[in-house]
Amino acid sequence: MEDKIKKVSIVISKGGLDGVYPGLIMANGARMEGIEANLFFTFFGMDAIIKKRMGKIKIATVGNPGMHMPSLLGVLPGFSAFATRMMMKTMDKLDIPPVPEYIEMIADAGGKLYACKATVDMFGLKKEDFAPQVDSIINVGRFYEISAGGEIIFT
Amino acid sequence: MEDKIKKVSIVISKGGLDGVYPGLIMANGARMEGIEANLFFTFFGMDAIIKKRMGKIKIATVGNPGMHMPSLLGVLPGFSAFATRMMMKTMDKLDIPPVPEYIEMIADAGGKLYACKATVDMFGLKKEDFAPQVDSIINVGRFYEISAGGEIIFT
Amino acid sequence: MEDKIKKVSIVISKGGLDGVYPGLIMANGARMEGIEANLFFTFFGMDAIIKKRMGKIKIATVGNPGMHMPSLLGVLPGFSAFATRMMMKTMDKLDIPPVPEYIEMIADAGGKLYACKATVDMFGLKKEDFAPQVDSIINVGRFYEISAGGEIIFT
Repeated sequence: MEDKIKKVSIVISKGGLDGVYPGLIMANGARMEGIEANLFFTFFGMDAIIKKRMGKIKIATVGNPGMHMPSLLGVLPGFSAFATRMMMKTMDKLDIPPVPEYIEMIADAGGKLYACKATVDMFGLKKEDFAPQVDSIINVGRFYEISAGGEIIFT
Repeated sequence: MEDKIKKVSIVISKGGLDGVYPGLIMANGARMEGIEANLFFTFFGMDAIIKKRMGKIKIATVGNPGMHMPSLLGVLPGFSAFATRMMMKTMDKLDIPPVPEYIEMIADAGGKLYACKATVDMFGLKKEDFAPQVDSIINVGRFYEISAGGEIIFT
Repeated sequence: MEDKIKKVSIVISKGGLDGVYPGLIMANGARMEGIEANLFFTFFGMDAIIKKRMGKIKIATVGNPGMHMPSLLGVLPGFSAFATRMMMKTMDKLDIPPVPEYIEMIADAGGKLYACKATVDMFGLKKEDFAPQVDSIINVGRFYEISAGGEIIFT
């Protein structure tokens, strides 16, 4: 028998609901099993913890062959918002909360949230731009320290 | 000398041939080295194990700067199908099989395939919608149990 | 206290600046902490080590909801180049070098670079097409051997 996984450190690097949700679901699932969970938000994934943006994240409809729709439809303004509403309705039925509530729920369950320093500097952000659940702004070196002894999952 | 890797648990989360193949190639490569291989299909990556869809997966041509083509070309209907045929011809020459045969080959070699419960519920799918090689529908907690003692690779 | 991470093996599989930079930043961050760093370039990520292409990598503007711009704007020819120049200016201010210099810097710091054999065969590439910092062309099995005892990070 292998030892149980003790810790997961999940990097959320992509924007859009489809970029952000997999990492949140894996972090939440870890906490439900008593596994330590760290979330590290970087590049476009950082939207999920920026106060002004976390409630407005949409699904990507262009360049996503998994959506099964002609590409020309995907570039029509408004269509992404429509697909987003559809997806959120379904998630609601499954008890998967919207991003801001999900972030709060994971933090309340003991998950730790970090913002990537390089991205923070690149976008000119400040600590007060982030949701209060964000523990701190850390660099890659510190991320590796925090992740030691667990699995790193880059999403 | 480090110990050999004993197990890889690969998450396939993205649609399109370019989303699906990397995980299949890494799973197949693992089995060829005697490494235990688990595949966990989630979000748009689930197309690769849905009977009706696994034979029709295309390559993404829009929003993919690695394709070296103007974006306007990428949104023309039919172009994705063309790029897909080109890629599949090349893969055929390299003995990389189409998705359905590749799935079968990996399962025959002892790789284990799982579908993500949250995605199954979201898309309203049932066990009979999946290729017969799919072992079961599992949640994130079970995925972590299966992955213990190995590397998690999220693609 | 957990043991420190000793090794990271980072797969760069996606094209575009936003596909390539996260892996380079994580590899560089690892070397700065004395962590062994292997980079494995595959699929569209391979552009980052191809001599003719590594200096011309652009940012993806279509199908990227994290960019906060209407999709129709993203498909206009020239816009991707504009967004790319903006991003590179900001990165320059943060002392993050362009891709060719970054590759050189990581190699000089002791990071090891590998090209994926399947992709090399698929695109009909040869060893001389790659930057001199590329150590060798390896298959997935060899990648697992090299990665043993560390974290695999698929970007």
